[in-house]
Amino acid sequence: MKIIIEENYEVLSQTVASLILAEIYQEKRVNIDLTDGSSPQGAFDILAKIFQKYPDRLDNVHIYNHDELEGGAIVDGLLRKQIHLPFGFKEENIHRMTFETHQEFMKEIENDGGLDFMLLGLGADGHFCANFPGTPCFDKLVYTYDPKDYPWYEEYLTNMGMTEMPKIATFGFRSVLRAKKVVVVVNGAKKAQAVYDIFNKELSEEIPGTILRLHPNITFVLDEEAASLLKK
Amino acid sequence: MKIIIEENYEVLSQTVASLILAEIYQEKRVNIDLTDGSSPQGAFDILAKIFQKYPDRLDNVHIYNHDELEGGAIVDGLLRKQIHLPFGFKEENIHRMTFETHQEFMKEIENDGGLDFMLLGLGADGHFCANFPGTPCFDKLVYTYDPKDYPWYEEYLTNMGMTEMPKIATFGFRSVLRAKKVVVVVNGAKKAQAVYDIFNKELSEEIPGTILRLHPNITFVLDEEAASLLKK
Amino acid sequence: MKIIIEENYEVLSQTVASLILAEIYQEKRVNIDLTDGSSPQGAFDILAKIFQKYPDRLDNVHIYNHDELEGGAIVDGLLRKQIHLPFGFKEENIHRMTFETHQEFMKEIENDGGLDFMLLGLGADGHFCANFPGTPCFDKLVYTYDPKDYPWYEEYLTNMGMTEMPKIATFGFRSVLRAKKVVVVVNGAKKAQAVYDIFNKELSEEIPGTILRLHPNITFVLDEEAASLLKK
Amino acid sequence: MKIIIEENYEVLSQTVASLILAEIYQEKRVNIDLTDGSSPQGAFDILAKIFQKYPDRLDNVHIYNHDELEGGAIVDGLLRKQIHLPFGFKEENIHRMTFETHQEFMKEIENDGGLDFMLLGLGADGHFCANFPGTPCFDKLVYTYDPKDYPWYEEYLTNMGMTEMPKIATFGFRSVLRAKKVVVVVNGAKKAQAVYDIFNKELSEEIPGTILRLHPNITFVLDEEAASLLKK
Repeated sequence: MKIIIEENYEVLSQTVASLILAEIYQEKRVNIDLTDGSSPQGAFDILAKIFQKYPDRLDNVHIYNHDELEGGAIVDGLLRKQIHLPFGFKEENIHRMTFETHQEFMKEIENDGGLDFMLLGLGADGHFCANFPGTPCFDKLVYTYDPKDYPWYEEYLTNMGMTEMPKIATFGFRSVLRAKKVVVVVNGAKKAQAVYDIFNKELSEEIPGTILRLHPNITFVLDEEAASLLKK
Repeated sequence: MKIIIEENYEVLSQTVASLILAEIYQEKRVNIDLTDGSSPQGAFDILAKIFQKYPDRLDNVHIYNHDELEGGAIVDGLLRKQIHLPFGFKEENIHRMTFETHQEFMKEIENDGGLDFMLLGLGADGHFCANFPGTPCFDKLVYTYDPKDYPWYEEYLTNMGMTEMPKIATFGFRSVLRAKKVVVVVNGAKKAQAVYDIFNKELSEEIPGTILRLHPNITFVLDEEAASLLKK
Repeated sequence: MKIIIEENYEVLSQTVASLILAEIYQEKRVNIDLTDGSSPQGAFDILAKIFQKYPDRLDNVHIYNHDELEGGAIVDGLLRKQIHLPFGFKEENIHRMTFETHQEFMKEIENDGGLDFMLLGLGADGHFCANFPGTPCFDKLVYTYDPKDYPWYEEYLTNMGMTEMPKIATFGFRSVLRAKKVVVVVNGAKKAQAVYDIFNKELSEEIPGTILRLHPNITFVLDEEAASLLKK
Repeated sequence: MKIIIEENYEVLSQTVASLILAEIYQEKRVNIDLTDGSSPQGAFDILAKIFQKYPDRLDNVHIYNHDELEGGAIVDGLLRKQIHLPFGFKEENIHRMTFETHQEFMKEIENDGGLDFMLLGLGADGHFCANFPGTPCFDKLVYTYDPKDYPWYEEYLTNMGMTEMPKIATFGFRSVLRAKKVVVVVNGAKKAQAVYDIFNKELSEEIPGTILRLHPNITFVLDEEAASLLKK
């Protein structure tokens, strides 16, 4: 893995935008998967401005999602608002995993030639995609679970200001491992412990992000706050 | 090929810097070849600022040159001043083709795993690397010639304010074709005709750049002036 | 390029079969294009025996054609008889370029992720795919022409025992260059001059195969007769 | 992963030889690591016959080892006898990890561009490389241990007819994961349970081979005896 520590969120966002642009600025078809969330918002703002002006530059790019709730709040909710609409993705270039179709979706990705690029975030609890502590995530291409079965459920609802959380389908690590390049963007002091843990704690599904260090082509882009517990 | 047309030199420079950064921000060894010249200077300024602050980020990067004059003015002259020193490349990561060692240099590159990335410029006469009009460049990995043998010699000396030009060793197109990714940066109105020609004229060693369109993974980054004769 | 010279047709056929098998024995989707003709027949016999016994091994393999006559004699004629049926390709894994759809077919290939592997032959006149002497083949992804316009037409009809030849659509070299790996199989004394020429004559559309030596990942498998004019 | 089940050892050996040949028959430098042991002997016999006749075909191939005993019995003992000498590897193409230099060796591999291909075997206890049951192998590039610290030690000595076994340095799974392609060859009824386990049991360092199924480009070549417990 390569670890890039940027001095602030603005520089981090430019760096992440650069890594995504370099994937897109190729002639060939490119299959990407971009996480929602607050960490990549700065990079997305830079990119949205470019693609609104030059929509043709996305013609070769197909976008996929890596998790979805029963009911469908992510791909046509969060991702639509944060990525699909601002970037101006064409409908035919958006590929949707629903809770019900998660198995077929893996075949669709394989048939489309696999993912070239994934942008991931990291939760303060060490999760990536929807691989939360204790879920069986290391050995799965994709799987589903009910968050009510996990000890973090109540606290999670409170933190997110939610009253209920439906069942989830999510890529496990095997699918991340099949992406040719992975970038993980993490910012802010409240993620510093998770960043420390994924580089220093033992491999464990209790801290799902520990497994990320096994990917052979992964780049972590951190701001100084998120990296504050790492010793160089 | 992918053609990216940016509105001005500043944006073009950021885009080129992004494409180079994405190569460098990997864990694995990366072999790159960056052209000298005025077109990439803006990108190099952005990159030099980054690597002066974070010299470790270049540890995995090895740099090669693609042409050299008898006497040795390029790799330890032009490139040293414009790239090696400002970026802070370590001596052991700089690989030098001299006029005398051009054949062995091709074996060195093969033995090092090949070039991952080349940044090229384009001359107003359609040249890339030191493949000037009429040189036998399409079919060569590397070759040498004496510029005095070519009709453009006198005018070239005048334009460059030179009194003499020594013999040259340069990569031909076969070596460019072996690079996994190629980016060509071109700016300014005086290059507009050359840009038009390389996309629209017949393949010919009289306009060497015409052959570049055959590369299967090449991205042209142009400013609007350089692209002014292209119809979309 | 790598040149493998085998002592006889039987060994050559095993070698070519090995190179094709290694592409196929991967989990991921693999896009291949196999030439018809007599040279690869020995390799195809080895492979057909395997896939008749284990049809599942082709599930991940999609097959494309690189030329077609007006009227459609190749993909559902020659290739069907020599490859599709003996190997047992499923209908949904066969991708057809017709004379009329040659432009759309290039988009289909790009959208499918490009070709991973091409197996080509070489004609005694130096042709590959349907790039015959004098056709404008170096700079094209795909193009059509009328063989009646070429000086070799009458002799070709006589040699092939044909009374007429319809118009042709064929990949040019740019499409071959976009395939990640290319293998060229050539056998027999009557191809010895063509083999010598493509390695030793100047690049020229009069001997189309000369351009093949530019491909960065190409392996020639020859028998000793076809290689008899090469000096080591 | 792709699973190829061959009817007997002869066919399995031809298949494994084919997969290795396809790596070698490229022009570019190829870095490979071939396991010692009885399973690949048939494939090695096929290959040795070829390379004794055509030693030039190995010029582009560099060979590495993935484990070594304190004292040095493997790379200049087992591998030398089973691979280096029969194939005719040139001294300068053999790269040696010793027990003492295992850390530097990983840097050497990275600097050489990484491994293109690994051929592994599988032990009846589920081990690959020298990752035996209970060793901390999932998260390591390379590590050392003393076999005397493990419960299988005495039985292992008896089985191997040895009186003592020195300390070992071995690649862990992270290094296997960094190889672009992996082939695992397994034959014989006494490996059937191990084969079943690595595809069906939970990920666990007690059965090290379970982790192999995570590699994104891995092909298992089994004979029917080794595959006898797998249900299709």
